Amino acid sequence: MKKVAVILSGCGVFDGAEIHEAVISLLALARQGASTQCFAPDVPQLHVINHLTGDVSEGESRNVLVEAARICRGQIRDVAELDAADFDALLLPGGFGAAKNLCDFAIKGAQCQIQPDVLKACQSFARAGKPAAYICIAPAMIPLIYGAGTLATIGRDEGTASAMEAMGASHLACPVNEFVVDEERRVISTPAYMLANNIIEAADGIEKAVKQLLAMC
Amino acid sequence: MKKVAVILSGCGVFDGAEIHEAVISLLALARQGASTQCFAPDVPQLHVINHLTGDVSEGESRNVLVEAARICRGQIRDVAELDAADFDALLLPGGFGAAKNLCDFAIKGAQCQIQPDVLKACQSFARAGKPAAYICIAPAMIPLIYGAGTLATIGRDEGTASAMEAMGASHLACPVNEFVVDEERRVISTPAYMLANNIIEAADGIEKAVKQLLAMC
Repeated sequence: MKKVAVILSGCGVFDGAEIHEAVISLLALARQGASTQCFAPDVPQLHVINHLTGDVSEGESRNVLVEAARICRGQIRDVAELDAADFDALLLPGGFGAAKNLCDFAIKGAQCQIQPDVLKACQSFARAGKPAAYICIAPAMIPLIYGAGTLATIGRDEGTASAMEAMGASHLACPVNEFVVDEERRVISTPAYMLANNIIEAADGIEKAVKQLLAMC
Repeated sequence: MKKVAVILSGCGVFDGAEIHEAVISLLALARQGASTQCFAPDVPQLHVINHLTGDVSEGESRNVLVEAARICRGQIRDVAELDAADFDALLLPGGFGAAKNLCDFAIKGAQCQIQPDVLKACQSFARAGKPAAYICIAPAMIPLIYGAGTLATIGRDEGTASAMEAMGASHLACPVNEFVVDEERRVISTPAYMLANNIIEAADGIEKAVKQLLAMC
C-alpha cells in the first residue's frame, strides 16, 4: 500500500484548509488504494475568520494543528515530524490557510516565505524525488521548494500567476478538471477551488491529480 | 433539479458535524444531480473539544451556525428559516454535534429533546411526506420526529440502540455499507462513522443512502 502524507493548514477555506478539497483528497487517496497520514504545523493561525460573515474574529486565536485535527478525526501529527523517508508521496490541499499559515503568500505575494517546518518537510520530498501534489493556492509554494523554471498552475488567476512567475515558476493556465505535471521535478498542481464553481468541479480535478500522484510513486 | 436541505451541527466530529460525512453527502448529492442548501441552528455549541487531545477546551465557546459555515464555504442559513415547502428532501450528517447541539442525546439519552428550530424544520419534512436521510448518530432524533414504531438504525451499538428503542424507535441492526428505510414515513438512516473503520466505508453507505433519498423525491 502506498503511503501518502497530507499537509493541512487549519480547518475552513477562509483561514485554514479548504474542507472539501481536504476530504475529497483523503477519499480519493483511500479509494485509489493509498494509506494516508495528516500533518500540520504547530503554530497559531494568521487569524480567525468568521465563515458566516467573512469578518476577522477580533481577539480570537486558534492553532493550525489543533484545528486541522478536526478534518482527520484527531489522527494528525506535527509537520515537524514529517520526513519523506517514511512516505511514498505528499499532497497539500488548498484553502487560504495554505497561503496564510503554511506560508505568507496571502500577505507578501512574491516575497513570501514558507513556515520552516513545512519547508523542510516539502523539501525532503523534492530532494528524494518522491512525487507531490499541490492543490488550489498551495502551488504558490512550488517555486520556493523546487526552484526556478518549475511548471505549476493555480488555474488562470492572473495576479496569482504573475506573483508565481516573479518567484521563478513557469505558470501554465489549466482548466479546473485537469492538472499540470513537472515530470522532471515530479510535482503536480491542479486549480480546484481557484477555479471550481462547485464541489463536482473541484472533485474532478483532485481525483485526476491523485491518480497521477499515485501513478508516479 | 431536486433541492435538498442539509442540517449541519458545527464543524468537527467531537463537538460538531462529522466533516467527512458532511462533505461526502454534499458531493454525493451534487453528483447525483441535486442542488443543496446548508442550514444550522444559531446557538452556542455544547462545548469546544480540542480535536488533537480530545479534551474540552475550557473557557472557549463557539456558535454552531458560524462553525458549520466552514463546511460550506460560508453558504449557510439559520435553520429557523428552513421549511419543507422550499425543498424536496432533507439530509442530516452525524458527528457528536448531532447529539450535542441539534439535540441533547449525548447527555440525556432517551430523555433527550431536540433544539426547537431543528425540531420544527425536521417535523416540516415529516408532515409534508418529503423524504429525509439521517446519518451516523443523527437517527437518534428519528423517534422524536416520526413517532413510535419508526424503523431506524445507528448500526449495531447496543447502548445507543436501546436508548432509541426506549424513545419508541424500532431499531434495526445495519451494516456500514447499507441503510434502513421506513417506507411509510419516508425516512432513511445509515450508520456511517457509527460503524465505519475508514472513510471508504463511510462513503459507501452515505452514497447509497443519498441515491435512495433522491429516488424517493
